[in-house]
Amino acid sequence: MREMPPSHPFDDDKLKEECGVFGAIGLTDAANFVALGLHALQHRGQEAGGIVSHDPEVGFNSARRFGYVRDNFTKASLMDTLPGPLAIGHVRYSTAGSKGQTQIRDVQPFFGEFSMGGAAIAHNGNITNANALRKELIERGSIFQSSSDSECIIHLMARSLQRNIPERMKDALRRVEGAFSIVAMTRTKLIGVRDPLGVRPLVLGRLGDGWVLSSETCALDILGAEFIREIAPGEMVVISADKGVESFQPFERTKPRFCIFEHVYFSRPDSILGGRSVYETRHAIGVELAKEAPVDADLVCPVPDSGTPAAIGFSQQSGIPYAMGIIRNQYMGRTFIEPTEQIRNMGVRLKLNVNRALIRGKRVILVDDSVVRGTTSRKIKQMILDAGAAEVHFRIASPPTAWPCFYGVDTPERSKLLAANMSEEEMRAYLEVDSLKFISLDGLYRAVGEAKGRNSEAPQYCDACFSGEYPVAPSDMIANGFELKAAE
Amino acid sequence: MREMPPSHPFDDDKLKEECGVFGAIGLTDAANFVALGLHALQHRGQEAGGIVSHDPEVGFNSARRFGYVRDNFTKASLMDTLPGPLAIGHVRYSTAGSKGQTQIRDVQPFFGEFSMGGAAIAHNGNITNANALRKELIERGSIFQSSSDSECIIHLMARSLQRNIPERMKDALRRVEGAFSIVAMTRTKLIGVRDPLGVRPLVLGRLGDGWVLSSETCALDILGAEFIREIAPGEMVVISADKGVESFQPFERTKPRFCIFEHVYFSRPDSILGGRSVYETRHAIGVELAKEAPVDADLVCPVPDSGTPAAIGFSQQSGIPYAMGIIRNQYMGRTFIEPTEQIRNMGVRLKLNVNRALIRGKRVILVDDSVVRGTTSRKIKQMILDAGAAEVHFRIASPPTAWPCFYGVDTPERSKLLAANMSEEEMRAYLEVDSLKFISLDGLYRAVGEAKGRNSEAPQYCDACFSGEYPVAPSDMIANGFELKAAE
Amino acid sequence: MREMPPSHPFDDDKLKEECGVFGAIGLTDAANFVALGLHALQHRGQEAGGIVSHDPEVGFNSARRFGYVRDNFTKASLMDTLPGPLAIGHVRYSTAGSKGQTQIRDVQPFFGEFSMGGAAIAHNGNITNANALRKELIERGSIFQSSSDSECIIHLMARSLQRNIPERMKDALRRVEGAFSIVAMTRTKLIGVRDPLGVRPLVLGRLGDGWVLSSETCALDILGAEFIREIAPGEMVVISADKGVESFQPFERTKPRFCIFEHVYFSRPDSILGGRSVYETRHAIGVELAKEAPVDADLVCPVPDSGTPAAIGFSQQSGIPYAMGIIRNQYMGRTFIEPTEQIRNMGVRLKLNVNRALIRGKRVILVDDSVVRGTTSRKIKQMILDAGAAEVHFRIASPPTAWPCFYGVDTPERSKLLAANMSEEEMRAYLEVDSLKFISLDGLYRAVGEAKGRNSEAPQYCDACFSGEYPVAPSDMIANGFELKAAE
Amino acid sequence: MREMPPSHPFDDDKLKEECGVFGAIGLTDAANFVALGLHALQHRGQEAGGIVSHDPEVGFNSARRFGYVRDNFTKASLMDTLPGPLAIGHVRYSTAGSKGQTQIRDVQPFFGEFSMGGAAIAHNGNITNANALRKELIERGSIFQSSSDSECIIHLMARSLQRNIPERMKDALRRVEGAFSIVAMTRTKLIGVRDPLGVRPLVLGRLGDGWVLSSETCALDILGAEFIREIAPGEMVVISADKGVESFQPFERTKPRFCIFEHVYFSRPDSILGGRSVYETRHAIGVELAKEAPVDADLVCPVPDSGTPAAIGFSQQSGIPYAMGIIRNQYMGRTFIEPTEQIRNMGVRLKLNVNRALIRGKRVILVDDSVVRGTTSRKIKQMILDAGAAEVHFRIASPPTAWPCFYGVDTPERSKLLAANMSEEEMRAYLEVDSLKFISLDGLYRAVGEAKGRNSEAPQYCDACFSGEYPVAPSDMIANGFELKAAE
Repeated sequence: MREMPPSHPFDDDKLKEECGVFGAIGLTDAANFVALGLHALQHRGQEAGGIVSHDPEVGFNSARRFGYVRDNFTKASLMDTLPGPLAIGHVRYSTAGSKGQTQIRDVQPFFGEFSMGGAAIAHNGNITNANALRKELIERGSIFQSSSDSECIIHLMARSLQRNIPERMKDALRRVEGAFSIVAMTRTKLIGVRDPLGVRPLVLGRLGDGWVLSSETCALDILGAEFIREIAPGEMVVISADKGVESFQPFERTKPRFCIFEHVYFSRPDSILGGRSVYETRHAIGVELAKEAPVDADLVCPVPDSGTPAAIGFSQQSGIPYAMGIIRNQYMGRTFIEPTEQIRNMGVRLKLNVNRALIRGKRVILVDDSVVRGTTSRKIKQMILDAGAAEVHFRIASPPTAWPCFYGVDTPERSKLLAANMSEEEMRAYLEVDSLKFISLDGLYRAVGEAKGRNSEAPQYCDACFSGEYPVAPSDMIANGFELKAAE
Repeated sequence: MREMPPSHPFDDDKLKEECGVFGAIGLTDAANFVALGLHALQHRGQEAGGIVSHDPEVGFNSARRFGYVRDNFTKASLMDTLPGPLAIGHVRYSTAGSKGQTQIRDVQPFFGEFSMGGAAIAHNGNITNANALRKELIERGSIFQSSSDSECIIHLMARSLQRNIPERMKDALRRVEGAFSIVAMTRTKLIGVRDPLGVRPLVLGRLGDGWVLSSETCALDILGAEFIREIAPGEMVVISADKGVESFQPFERTKPRFCIFEHVYFSRPDSILGGRSVYETRHAIGVELAKEAPVDADLVCPVPDSGTPAAIGFSQQSGIPYAMGIIRNQYMGRTFIEPTEQIRNMGVRLKLNVNRALIRGKRVILVDDSVVRGTTSRKIKQMILDAGAAEVHFRIASPPTAWPCFYGVDTPERSKLLAANMSEEEMRAYLEVDSLKFISLDGLYRAVGEAKGRNSEAPQYCDACFSGEYPVAPSDMIANGFELKAAE
Repeated sequence: MREMPPSHPFDDDKLKEECGVFGAIGLTDAANFVALGLHALQHRGQEAGGIVSHDPEVGFNSARRFGYVRDNFTKASLMDTLPGPLAIGHVRYSTAGSKGQTQIRDVQPFFGEFSMGGAAIAHNGNITNANALRKELIERGSIFQSSSDSECIIHLMARSLQRNIPERMKDALRRVEGAFSIVAMTRTKLIGVRDPLGVRPLVLGRLGDGWVLSSETCALDILGAEFIREIAPGEMVVISADKGVESFQPFERTKPRFCIFEHVYFSRPDSILGGRSVYETRHAIGVELAKEAPVDADLVCPVPDSGTPAAIGFSQQSGIPYAMGIIRNQYMGRTFIEPTEQIRNMGVRLKLNVNRALIRGKRVILVDDSVVRGTTSRKIKQMILDAGAAEVHFRIASPPTAWPCFYGVDTPERSKLLAANMSEEEMRAYLEVDSLKFISLDGLYRAVGEAKGRNSEAPQYCDACFSGEYPVAPSDMIANGFELKAAE
Repeated sequence: MREMPPSHPFDDDKLKEECGVFGAIGLTDAANFVALGLHALQHRGQEAGGIVSHDPEVGFNSARRFGYVRDNFTKASLMDTLPGPLAIGHVRYSTAGSKGQTQIRDVQPFFGEFSMGGAAIAHNGNITNANALRKELIERGSIFQSSSDSECIIHLMARSLQRNIPERMKDALRRVEGAFSIVAMTRTKLIGVRDPLGVRPLVLGRLGDGWVLSSETCALDILGAEFIREIAPGEMVVISADKGVESFQPFERTKPRFCIFEHVYFSRPDSILGGRSVYETRHAIGVELAKEAPVDADLVCPVPDSGTPAAIGFSQQSGIPYAMGIIRNQYMGRTFIEPTEQIRNMGVRLKLNVNRALIRGKRVILVDDSVVRGTTSRKIKQMILDAGAAEVHFRIASPPTAWPCFYGVDTPERSKLLAANMSEEEMRAYLEVDSLKFISLDGLYRAVGEAKGRNSEAPQYCDACFSGEYPVAPSDMIANGFELKAAE
């Protein structure tokens, strides 16, 4: 069943984090805090957002909308329908160009009424055995209202024989494989869970007498909340007015594998992940890149905005001046409704313009965070050359992206990933640039603080998109024919 | 869980049919035919409408909207999203001012994916044991997405062990009590069902090579479809491209009890119910009223528009001239969004105006279809007196409405029904009119063609709203404390 | 300059009154009263509406909207922007299918700032020398913002050398030819004017301490205002808080010629025109018709809703039973936005349905108010025959419409008027009905109270649409090639 | 007369350029190119935009909308209403919080029909004798439809006795004082004019066989148009299909005084003004600042985004590392509709977040483009201190803004300008920072390429906002009581 969303995503050749989550308890009109938190997490999902709140007087309330948080969840007329001291919310990105588009019913949080009361749940990540679970649940008579993998969790909870919701959630999560950071709520409790590997982030904050859970610390800052700690991989916290924060370990212990790409691109530069400033990590990547792949040139320019910290690092390490060679149009939204033909053909020029006077005659190093299909990189290179650059050198702040992510990131299928099909030199030739260098996997590990680089026996992070080594078998995808990397 | 609808109903003191249903199979772009059918059934539900269609290429599609059919389901941009040769639809009215307002998720048709394929369902009526069924299903782990009684049917179907959808529907309906006329669809079949008593109408029509199901015949006329027959009480028809119309009898046979109020008010005057023209029945009611309760007067005026046929009948029987003493504003919608204080206080004057020049000094007989709370009747009487009428006589085309309907009609609770609390003379005094007469129950039966009147041993119709004799025990309501009429 | 309106009119083959006007002074939040008055006048113009108000604190305010009054001017959020004790408003219909569609800038009232203060003006009617005036004003440097004839008046006022606004308006109106009923306002005065012939209606009412001006009395009723008197042809009233109602005679006296078609169709049946109830006049037309053109038949049916009073009169005079043979869909709006192909082809079936059971086998007299192009009449005849009628007789409550109106009514060009091209018998043959009769011009005059019928030397009414005798020469149209009726 | 705009501006304590203009001729569907040009000029006016086009078949068409260009003028359904090979457009910012809000009728371009055909006009700048002109025109009977100063020009043109539109425009402009860059159009000509001082920019570009006029070169880049030259101060160009670009000099020659603040803040960094790259000028300002006002510190951070180029220059000159200490939320729009109380109180935190991990314990130099009221500077300082900075030093890339601009920039009244009331040291104390330094006026002139600094006898630029020396007397403001700087 499809219902059409109001807008068509504007593809810009980046991997997309699919979700951000936020929850608040013990705060007057908690939904307002959730809305602000989601606004700060908007980079994790721009297509749609939802909030569920609970008020002892009026029960559960819900609102789900396509579009930015700031365009929906800042209006008094909407927020007044979400009263109460407890709320959770979600922003999401959907897989553009694939089978279909998000329906409003796919927008989280999901809500279910159980025999002992209702619960709402939102997650960031991806359940890798969702298809199999869904099939099994439908056989038993469950009715799914969405195409979202998350809905499995709520059905598993509904069928659990446990007598309270945290226990039901444990039951459910033991059937689930994959990567997930969950915020959930009952009438009186705010719940946070990270999968055993801790692939996606989730942090705990304190605001006055209340508590908040957030995908990233930047959303604590917007509220003025204090950053307490990360939820640990495999941990479940249950937060209530009377008992405060209780911690549980519903899963078997395993060695964590946090997503290294959160450092490279997904998270905001002002967030702190695993005790490290994202900005500083990206700056360090630039420094590593300058060491690994130096080149004689006149200017170091970021591809805005995500390449900026690495470009600054590259400049400072290399001594080559940093400059804004490409200017981003601040008034560019990501979508157009029923656009004219001309708009459809404009592509990257709607968003980016080359600073022609600066670039003319110069040897330019462009620092970008990643290369996915390579389509945008080619257009940017062409813009730089059209502006009269003498040489164009690409330096990429991540290793070649050769494998799709199955843990909550929207990746093109493997055949469309440039690095899955070409060597570095082939990619350079395809992009028609003077040089192209990616940071090495070891270099990236050094930048995130692993002085000895990657432990190839037991990698410290999930780096499947670079290495093809998947810490959780993507069973639905394998059933669909996806081939894992051959053992070496 | 609530989500707010965009509008606030404008209460006008009438009983409200809660639903109309329509389905079509074997027609190019069937959803367009369903939309036109629903437009013709709009009087059965003005708050919201929904359509589900199925196309072999793209699968099931759905759209649900608040507001009139003509404002939503006439737009090419929406209808283009509902392709395929098979579709069903629904219009609904919601209970205003009671527990809350309709959410878009309560708008039918409902859809469920089963292990052998999906099905959508829409119904007109009310399931009187829905609360009990819902509780039982939640205990077993079903998750409800709406507060609608209809959703029970789809969950019961999901849990059925039968291997095809018509059989699953039979399974489900055997657990269900109450009044219902259902249209449902699978990927290849259009299904129609009436409850064993046949309380709500459902008719079959033929249009070219296709078939349609409709609540009323007036919706066949708008399409130019041929009226084939009524679906019989207790009958299930399964219509497919290859086998045409197949008829089944899933229920035990019982004596039918069609809703007599459909004749009095709910159905459109140009529909045919049980082989009788609704217009002619209402005209006959006016004739009966003039015989039962004659009065000397100068003019017979209908309360527009529902009292018109009975007023014409009254005039023709009595010889007192018929006149349009009250004029209805054609541009009156039923709802206002965030109205000014002044609008809120205007009440009936926004909709009706007295033809002062005509009324002045006259003895006026006002013919109305029913008296519910009496609030509007009082206002109309006052308008007539303010215009200078010499006398005001009310003649009501139905017996006193003293009991709530639990079979798909929105009725105020019993304590608010004027006739539940007052005798006819007390009502006359309360309305401050010169005379007030209701048609007798026997007179009404005669007008619908029962020459001997009501068979009090085995009434031919459901007349619970007048008699308090409920043909199906309203078990949820009894569990909530509703007291049946004491045995006499 | 065009800006597109949001909707496309749904042509239904009727002459269309182009405007209704309303003004109020001395009432708290006068704009709310104006809105209610305009709602009651909506039949005079359904496309758009506008209100200008003045508050001593905040000055002039304005709102203009496409769509019904009830959908725009009932919202607190809009009405709060129109404060103050003085306001005027306007509803308009635009000429569909002709040169183009209304722009929001063509929606009245118009406002102009003069050297001694601002004024707003709205009118009902048509200025027959507007093109010539406009050309002259543009030559002198006036800039027109609309394509409306009304804007000429405000430019003429701006250029007047008089020192107060009523005097400027007199100056302006002496240059203007045609038919107009004006409501206007300054910061402190409400002004009403009727052209010397008094072609269009305008009435004065009293509400508490305030005064209102309205096109029709039905808009006084909705407010509970007292009907004081009609503004006299050629009269200007200037109403202020301190001096009350002052009356002026800015024009040379001439014999009035009120529009007789206001009685036949334009005005609401509950209005009083020239001391006569519109409903009773229409009833009398039906009586005259039955005398002039009797026919043996089984049923008299109105074409809803405008033919209803005449049909009742015809039935009462002839003794043939009155019946609702055609049912109107109450949920039919007049416009569709981007409709599907199917909707576009539905035509009259979307609005009307035949009461088949009633009509079958019967000889039916259909009473309609007028025949314009004949297109709708043909469709209705066909519907009646398809339902099985034995005979169809048309009786028309007006003489043949053979000439266009240039005084504020939207008429097709002469070549498209059926009666301009055919005799009565040719029309009967074209419509393929058993008989067709129009009321005679004398019969119509008798029905409006002229016992001796039409005074052909000095007709008592403007009946140009029937007689081709234009009381004011349509000079712009003559300049465009329109040929007056040849002298006989 | 007011009509309310749909949104409320979110004040962020910056001077605001009030307008951008763009025109195109000789291009298929010119309005599409104008829309893209306006999108690239959105920084010059975010509140509303308008486009007028002309097509030989359908004449002039117009659309004006509140909101961003990309949200309105990218839709096929709107752009299809603006056909033809000739179009002009305008984006505008309105003065928030002052007398009122923009009405849609104040949105340019303005259109007037003259005796020899119509013309549309849009301008960037401000007419300093508009009030006096308006009064004079109203006395003579002109009717103004807007409160915009630009409308005077079109009325002066309407009253000109010249026989063609370019000559009428010359007539009109000779009565006008102030700063203006105009794009205008007739049915066949695109016209560009700059005032004699050339205060506001206007450039000419070539695109295929067509021509474009634009406020800035960045809007040529988005189209891929070639930058031909600037329109000279005092020049009028008339561009037609047959004669190409004709140049006229309607004004007396005078020494140009281009707005120096266009270099500092208004223009986009990728534009070229007076042959100089805006980015490089801002970088040079940073270099000058580092020379004039060095300070020992750990980091140089821009206040995003406008302080970025100067911060880079400061860093490169001083050797102190450049870092992104403040992160801007990319999903921040500038307005909220009916915001919650909480949103209203959030202020700058909605837009900016401090990179806490980076800032903690550091001595930070913040580089901003200007200080207006000082309100935002105080908040930013506080955020930096809250994040644990050891010292905060402000370096401002413009001299103290002590005088309002009357040439098309929205400035607070003089009493609200921090620098009008305080010395540099008082401002430092008020902002509570460790040091505060503005670039000197001479330093700024050096950065824009005047090696000898400002020529105080005959300043090369308009720098009235810094110096109080107004090159054109602001006569309306003087009439309203504004006091010029006392002669020294």
